Amino acid sequence: MGGEVKSNKKVVLKNYVTGFPRETDMEVVTDGEGFKFPEGGGGGVVLKNLYLSCDPYMRSRMSKHDEPSYVPDFVPGSVITGFGVGKVLHSDHPNFKVGDFVWGMTGWEEYSLITSPESLFKIKYTDIPLSYYTGLLGMPGFTAYVGFYEISSPKKGEYVFISAASGAVGQLVGQFAKLMGCYVVGSAGSDEKVDLLKNKFGFDEAFNYKKEEELGLTLKRYFPEGIDIYFENVGGAMLDAVLLNMRLHGRIAVCGMISQYNLEKPEGVHNLMYVVAKRIRMQGFIVFDHYHLYSQFLETTVSYIKEGKITYVEDVAEGLENAPSALIGLFSGRNKGKQLVVVARE
Amino acid sequence: MGGEVKSNKKVVLKNYVTGFPRETDMEVVTDGEGFKFPEGGGGGVVLKNLYLSCDPYMRSRMSKHDEPSYVPDFVPGSVITGFGVGKVLHSDHPNFKVGDFVWGMTGWEEYSLITSPESLFKIKYTDIPLSYYTGLLGMPGFTAYVGFYEISSPKKGEYVFISAASGAVGQLVGQFAKLMGCYVVGSAGSDEKVDLLKNKFGFDEAFNYKKEEELGLTLKRYFPEGIDIYFENVGGAMLDAVLLNMRLHGRIAVCGMISQYNLEKPEGVHNLMYVVAKRIRMQGFIVFDHYHLYSQFLETTVSYIKEGKITYVEDVAEGLENAPSALIGLFSGRNKGKQLVVVARE
Ligand SMILES: NC(=O)c1ccc[n+]([C@@H]2O[C@H](COP(=O)([O-])OP(=O)(O)OC[C@H]3O[C@@H](n4cnc5c(N)ncnc54)[C@H](OP(=O)(O)O)[C@@H]3O)[C@@H](O)[C@H]2O)c1
Ligand SMILES: NC(=O)c1ccc[n+]([C@@H]2O[C@H](COP(=O)([O-])OP(=O)(O)OC[C@H]3O[C@@H](n4cnc5c(N)ncnc54)[C@H](OP(=O)(O)O)[C@@H]3O)[C@@H](O)[C@H]2O)c1
Repeated sequence: MGGEVKSNKKVVLKNYVTGFPRETDMEVVTDGEGFKFPEGGGGGVVLKNLYLSCDPYMRSRMSKHDEPSYVPDFVPGSVITGFGVGKVLHSDHPNFKVGDFVWGMTGWEEYSLITSPESLFKIKYTDIPLSYYTGLLGMPGFTAYVGFYEISSPKKGEYVFISAASGAVGQLVGQFAKLMGCYVVGSAGSDEKVDLLKNKFGFDEAFNYKKEEELGLTLKRYFPEGIDIYFENVGGAMLDAVLLNMRLHGRIAVCGMISQYNLEKPEGVHNLMYVVAKRIRMQGFIVFDHYHLYSQFLETTVSYIKEGKITYVEDVAEGLENAPSALIGLFSGRNKGKQLVVVARE
Repeated sequence: MGGEVKSNKKVVLKNYVTGFPRETDMEVVTDGEGFKFPEGGGGGVVLKNLYLSCDPYMRSRMSKHDEPSYVPDFVPGSVITGFGVGKVLHSDHPNFKVGDFVWGMTGWEEYSLITSPESLFKIKYTDIPLSYYTGLLGMPGFTAYVGFYEISSPKKGEYVFISAASGAVGQLVGQFAKLMGCYVVGSAGSDEKVDLLKNKFGFDEAFNYKKEEELGLTLKRYFPEGIDIYFENVGGAMLDAVLLNMRLHGRIAVCGMISQYNLEKPEGVHNLMYVVAKRIRMQGFIVFDHYHLYSQFLETTVSYIKEGKITYVEDVAEGLENAPSALIGLFSGRNKGKQLVVVARE
């Protein structure tokens, strides 16, 4: 295979984005030169990309930052990178052999050369849908695990609220919280998603935040005794409403603030004084810091899946052509469940 | 003494306050009926009040709350209550005897009947100025101790920033942080206070925030590598500037937000997304939850005082007549150091 050249379709960022991203900020091109398999000896691995993950943090990478962010900016004219699942077609690395399935950082293209394959996870359970390694068993699912068990200090019987609850992370946080014996309420942006939360994921209650006039009162209705744990995915007005409704010694796992990602100036949050009065802990976290817990997460979650205790909903876009639209759909809530893109099915 | 009646001057709240409190929101009156010493058997203690503490949280008690706050509202027409130091003139309680000095919740008046004296602390070290039990060895000093050692997880060599740094709490936080081997910078509202911070309390640096154009840049200048610990006393724009300048895994001990206490609607804080990117922990606390640590704090701090390792600056108002003005002075920064009121010197 060394030296072989294959045609390689890819998604490229056209220019840095300000405000809401549009499909036209990206371009699907077929590289004129094609993908050339390495001759060997470089220590890298060639992946055939199967499933690509659309994740909100990618929005940040589409902007130019004067100061380095926690993830590097994309480079206009270059292929977009992100988490994905692939099959090893060629390996110069002792940890990987041809035919292995892996997940980790790859390119939004048909074939990628991974020059530092140490960062890839070899997929141990291939009897589970491989696409799950973009969601349930990949970065977002692991985020749910870390954010809930490690950051929120949950206890049986506590009152848990989750925003963007039907998404890649939220749906799993809710199920973990139910398994722990918590009372769980989620918010989402459509009635269909609310239905998923209640009838598919087993949340105790759920509401469509777009239909509520005053989120503070809505939360008071669902949490007459207040919220012990808020799993924060959206920020802005929802955070303000939550602060009003937290219980004493409550915890906020600050996972993300998607409602702010496309604003030039983030909205103001007004109710922070409740952090004092209610002795609240707000704890930000980034899943990358916790990779040492990945195999513990994997074993726990795979058991739950096999026992039928956990379910997962994916929203699948077909083909790299549809990747830009799938990605930007996250910011209007078009995705129902984990948004991913199929590049190839093996 | 039982049955004896003494004239009793007191400070009364005239009406609930909105916005900035004014001297005229309070009134100094001499009770027509006077103070009648109990006949005995009630389990209470009569205090002659010596020193009264002016504390920012009292502002909250001057407003009417629809939902109960963490401290009850004052009642218009009734005496204001707060922390103070007193001498026991009469005791029906086995823990206290005539002549004891105590600190704790008392009235803003000459004599107070404390019906639940269990909440009072008997003063163990009377060789230290008794007024210190309104500040350095009282509630504010203990707040500094709890907020720094228990909430901030400090480590030697870390970069510490303190707002309202010359005040009752802040001046002590800075000295504790220096004793731990941290780099310490404080902000305050006048050049005279900045001078105190640098030359009296031993802060490494200090600045007058009122003279700075852009607090984010100011903090960048003092913390080129970022802030590990922010001891939050003021909220608002300063918090936003700090969030920009926090280091990875930084901690914010959220003690108070005095810049917001007189606003009808609190300002918005915009930079909370840094809580995620920098994995920040913001932890609110109320000193009352930590009273089990008081004697540990006392012994540590008294040793430091005796070794000359800690100093303390008080701002002393003479007489109950000056108490209203001393209290409201907190909100314009008129106090230099711990604001207290002398009712009587023994
Ligand atoms: N800290 C970490 O390490 C880490 C790792 C992964 C993800 N995250 C964060 O976790 C959050 C959820 O990520 P995910 O992958 O699970 O995404 P997701 O929920 O699957 O997709 C994004 C969802 O966010 C909601 N949304 C979009 N714009 C919104 C707005 N303006 N206001 C309120 N909701 C909005 C939409 O759902 P609705 O229809 O319900 O509005 C949308 O479906 C994001 O904030 C992400 O950045 C953090
Ligand atoms: N959580 C708890 O248990 C607890 C316990 C005690 C105190 N606290 C809080 O700790 C903080 C400090 O209390 P303290 O007793 O030490 O008071 P203090 O600092 O002795 O006095 C208040 C000081 O706040 C500053 N200030 C007033 N208005 C301001 C504004 N708009 N913006 C910025 N600064 C302003 C002034 O100093 P400058 O001249 O420097 O502006 C003023 O001297 C307060 O927020 C208080 O509520 C909390």
